[in-house]
Amino acid sequence: MGNKFDAFTKFRQRMNERILEHDNKVIKRMFSVDSLAYAEGGALPVKTKELLGLVASLVLRCDDCVSYHLAKCGESGASRDEIMEAMSIGLLVGGTIVIPHLRRAVDFLDDLDAQPAG
Amino acid sequence: MGNKFDAFTKFRQRMNERILEHDNKVIKRMFSVDSLAYAEGGALPVKTKELLGLVASLVLRCDDCVSYHLAKCGESGASRDEIMEAMSIGLLVGGTIVIPHLRRAVDFLDDLDAQPAG
Amino acid sequence: MGNKFDAFTKFRQRMNERILEHDNKVIKRMFSVDSLAYAEGGALPVKTKELLGLVASLVLRCDDCVSYHLAKCGESGASRDEIMEAMSIGLLVGGTIVIPHLRRAVDFLDDLDAQPAG
Amino acid sequence: MGNKFDAFTKFRQRMNERILEHDNKVIKRMFSVDSLAYAEGGALPVKTKELLGLVASLVLRCDDCVSYHLAKCGESGASRDEIMEAMSIGLLVGGTIVIPHLRRAVDFLDDLDAQPAG
Amino acid sequence: MGNKFDAFTKFRQRMNERILEHDNKVIKRMFSVDSLAYAEGGALPVKTKELLGLVASLVLRCDDCVSYHLAKCGESGASRDEIMEAMSIGLLVGGTIVIPHLRRAVDFLDDLDAQPAG
Amino acid sequence: MGNKFDAFTKFRQRMNERILEHDNKVIKRMFSVDSLAYAEGGALPVKTKELLGLVASLVLRCDDCVSYHLAKCGESGASRDEIMEAMSIGLLVGGTIVIPHLRRAVDFLDDLDAQPAG
Repeated sequence: MGNKFDAFTKFRQRMNERILEHDNKVIKRMFSVDSLAYAEGGALPVKTKELLGLVASLVLRCDDCVSYHLAKCGESGASRDEIMEAMSIGLLVGGTIVIPHLRRAVDFLDDLDAQPAG
Repeated sequence: MGNKFDAFTKFRQRMNERILEHDNKVIKRMFSVDSLAYAEGGALPVKTKELLGLVASLVLRCDDCVSYHLAKCGESGASRDEIMEAMSIGLLVGGTIVIPHLRRAVDFLDDLDAQPAG
Repeated sequence: MGNKFDAFTKFRQRMNERILEHDNKVIKRMFSVDSLAYAEGGALPVKTKELLGLVASLVLRCDDCVSYHLAKCGESGASRDEIMEAMSIGLLVGGTIVIPHLRRAVDFLDDLDAQPAG
Repeated sequence: MGNKFDAFTKFRQRMNERILEHDNKVIKRMFSVDSLAYAEGGALPVKTKELLGLVASLVLRCDDCVSYHLAKCGESGASRDEIMEAMSIGLLVGGTIVIPHLRRAVDFLDDLDAQPAG
Repeated sequence: MGNKFDAFTKFRQRMNERILEHDNKVIKRMFSVDSLAYAEGGALPVKTKELLGLVASLVLRCDDCVSYHLAKCGESGASRDEIMEAMSIGLLVGGTIVIPHLRRAVDFLDDLDAQPAG
Repeated sequence: MGNKFDAFTKFRQRMNERILEHDNKVIKRMFSVDSLAYAEGGALPVKTKELLGLVASLVLRCDDCVSYHLAKCGESGASRDEIMEAMSIGLLVGGTIVIPHLRRAVDFLDDLDAQPAG
């Protein structure tokens, strides 16, 4: 895994801990539903659900969310071709305003591929 | 197919014709890319691409787009369970602001199922 | 309560039942967190939380969500002046694109006030 | 002017009056800045500013705002070709999620053209 | 006040001055309405209005706006519990796409608390 | 042209190449329609179309897209006054949530003007 993913993951984990230290039930439950939604055992395979999370994140234009789902898509067996085709639908539905996020997504993918997984 | 789908389809077809009568290349090409994106022959099956279009439409909260992709998901073999699971990811990512669109989506699905296909 | 509220409430209840009949844990939990978030017992009074839900709905421009929180704001004791001031912040932050939703919100409020509560 | 424009204008005027009856300075000032922004006398011609308002409304996907600026574009001398080209940029930047709004925009334009101005 | 707040405030003040040097009445009036909206003297307390600005900013996912209102919420007497509860409503309404902004918001709050106010 | 524009342009060009290396027809066509839309020969002058692209980008709050169109507006002959007036409409329609993007836009414009074009 690449450097961008490492920096992103560290900040993500540190802040998730800070957020969940706080005693707020709504936030805690939103985080737990988030884990549940992409887990195995539903009607759709995990890979499809991660591609759905990726495209939702792309059209809503959240770079961190896109990065997270790109890593998860890879882990669940999605190929670069499948990921690019999913993102092409996000680009079409969301318009050219999505292009800068697509650039950063491909840069992140290249970074993920640049180093062997730990 | 149900009554809501009929009314929606008639307006959609009539206005698509009106739009494409106008000699604007950008609009014409956007419409032709739209057809291309969900066609067979890519890295992902048509059903997956329609589910991606559905979730993108749901988080961007466009009822007409949701209706269109619900019909296409059905045509490409997606089950009610698969459609509902895809929409659950849209609800999670997009938040409770998505709920009114989810209500109209399920109402549209019920209407689609209420009558035999022509 | 007025006629608009009645029609809105009937559709809302009927479709919530249809949605929750479906066995999807993510959707069910999103609905239950939604009830939890605006309940008594947190750091903020219910009225303030309903005003927060109202403004979030207004800037995201969802008429049904605005209607729902307008009714709840009234039930939790918010005055017309407080509701209008909360919506003025939504208009400022969200811009003039919010104006048509503000028109429908005031029309809904007038309808709510037009008939004695049942 | 057509029937759709009449119904839209009546509701718009009635609710603007209701909104401005309420003594809220932020709302009143937002309405007055709105009039100022599209007035003559700035660096850009009124027609260009109305086209800018139209495209902003289209990518943010507000049908009422699109209808309003379509009427104003016509009044300020924009041709159907200019309006369609402006909307083609909105479609490109905003993506296919804009298509249902483009359909309703062209339907509204056809309605505007269907009857002689009063 | 912390380092992040200092850097943010300096850029903010410098660019506000540059923007207001330009002779554009619409921009100047938008800035003055912005000051008016959160001032004392309306139907709602300043603290409530700042919480409304915070949640509007969070669901529209603007980090700078969130940072600004976090600082203002603190100044107007909102506790960490109240701020977190307000943000929990933003997370619920806006969905998990809000999570990266919530992480940066809590990081900003921690930074604000790390140093005594000047 | 300034330093910010250089860094932005390099990343933009490098990633556009990476994206277009990938054999995805939908993405390639979206990029080619993007070039077509702002080209000479339509009903509107290039300068007007760049201002439309700028305002669409501003209300959708994409800094990279705003930067790109700011540079193109300058190249097509738009004055600082015309650009600021176009952006004032974006601020009005999009609301104060646009302000941080307006700050970065003016900072980018100042950087563009700070150095002679190469």
